[in-house]
Amino acid sequence: MSIDVYATAGAIEKDLRNHACVIVDVLRASSVITTAIEHGCKSVIPVAEVEDAAMMARQLGGERVLLCGERQGLLIPGFNLSNSPLEYTQEAVSGRVLVMSTTNGTRAILRTGSCKAMFMGSFLNAKAVAEAALSQSDSIAIVCAGTGGRYSLDDILCSGAIISRIIDMTGKQALCDLSRTALALYDSYSEDLFTSLQGSQHFERLRSLGFEEDIRYCLQEDVMQAVPVCVNGVIRKLDRGA
Amino acid sequence: MSIDVYATAGAIEKDLRNHACVIVDVLRASSVITTAIEHGCKSVIPVAEVEDAAMMARQLGGERVLLCGERQGLLIPGFNLSNSPLEYTQEAVSGRVLVMSTTNGTRAILRTGSCKAMFMGSFLNAKAVAEAALSQSDSIAIVCAGTGGRYSLDDILCSGAIISRIIDMTGKQALCDLSRTALALYDSYSEDLFTSLQGSQHFERLRSLGFEEDIRYCLQEDVMQAVPVCVNGVIRKLDRGA
Repeated sequence: MSIDVYATAGAIEKDLRNHACVIVDVLRASSVITTAIEHGCKSVIPVAEVEDAAMMARQLGGERVLLCGERQGLLIPGFNLSNSPLEYTQEAVSGRVLVMSTTNGTRAILRTGSCKAMFMGSFLNAKAVAEAALSQSDSIAIVCAGTGGRYSLDDILCSGAIISRIIDMTGKQALCDLSRTALALYDSYSEDLFTSLQGSQHFERLRSLGFEEDIRYCLQEDVMQAVPVCVNGVIRKLDRGA
Repeated sequence: MSIDVYATAGAIEKDLRNHACVIVDVLRASSVITTAIEHGCKSVIPVAEVEDAAMMARQLGGERVLLCGERQGLLIPGFNLSNSPLEYTQEAVSGRVLVMSTTNGTRAILRTGSCKAMFMGSFLNAKAVAEAALSQSDSIAIVCAGTGGRYSLDDILCSGAIISRIIDMTGKQALCDLSRTALALYDSYSEDLFTSLQGSQHFERLRSLGFEEDIRYCLQEDVMQAVPVCVNGVIRKLDRGA
């Protein structure tokens, strides 16, 4: 079996139709989606643009829809929830449909083409998403959102965490060079993820906006069992009985 | 000052006109060019295609021109030298003009747009090329050739070596996320570069072709002082008196 990592969705150069894909935007969209699904939201619908979100919400109608996401890290005017996972409590999201647009994460979901199965991965559900991916294919691709179309250390580190869980379960695997890098970084840094990310671009941007508590939240490992799975453009909780 | 690393020339998204650029294709083109320049070749002219090389040689005329490079790692039919640095002895190259075409390295040179100065970097001349880059600009960009348009661990590790030399000379610098990754990998792996690259894609491809001796040669650190500099499409030895 093989495990590939892509630094951005734009870097995908393979046909992934037989792959299980894990989308990672650890600060913060994939952590937000994991949290929302864990806390009982009915579904998350990723959309590229702010206008798409409003239109989708109108089409869905009703009070059960929440508009969620960020631009430049902040709440979008007129939206219900920002991109802070701390807002996605059970009280706020249980039973609701979330229409979500973020700068990097939801776009990575939309840019990753067809694949056998598409999951959202984060530190929060690293082990659970590793198990889900393994259950679907021998060929696993971890697609990082990156930051502004560039390699982002936080996403690579989270990819390393997911790869380490896969290897714990299956033994040594064929790793591409970026997978090897991600695993080596995670092995070096896993004792203190927060300190190891200091100075990295996206981490410092969020910290400067006052989101240190969000960052600490997103760096918790294996505290959730929910695996968000995207089918036909709609993200729901993976049904393990299926 | 800032130090950016690009995994491939295709990933460059900045205007580099004020940057000192270091092109790295450590296995093997930038190691070959460093060796050729150290051993007294007059110049190296990088060209994209095999046909370009033959045409350029005809235009230059005379016996002092050597056709050099590889396709799929091997000597190109009708060429004088392959992409093995062991062939680039003083006897073979002193005073000669080398017209060179390789799969990744020379193309990275040609794809990197205008910059303030463009040098070739390798483990062989890591310290010397770091000094040369620092002498030209406070903004340094290390452009990896990559392998087949993808991130290649050998080039990233060599970037880390060059960054470590810069930091030794100047102290802490602003590093992009990929620069941080390169430095972290180099710090982890510098005690045994050969072992640390085992399993990586380009390393294993070259080893399977029988080039283990070439690899060991290319992983020697700071054994050469020559800095190849590319001006108007021609690579010559940097004149430190200039």
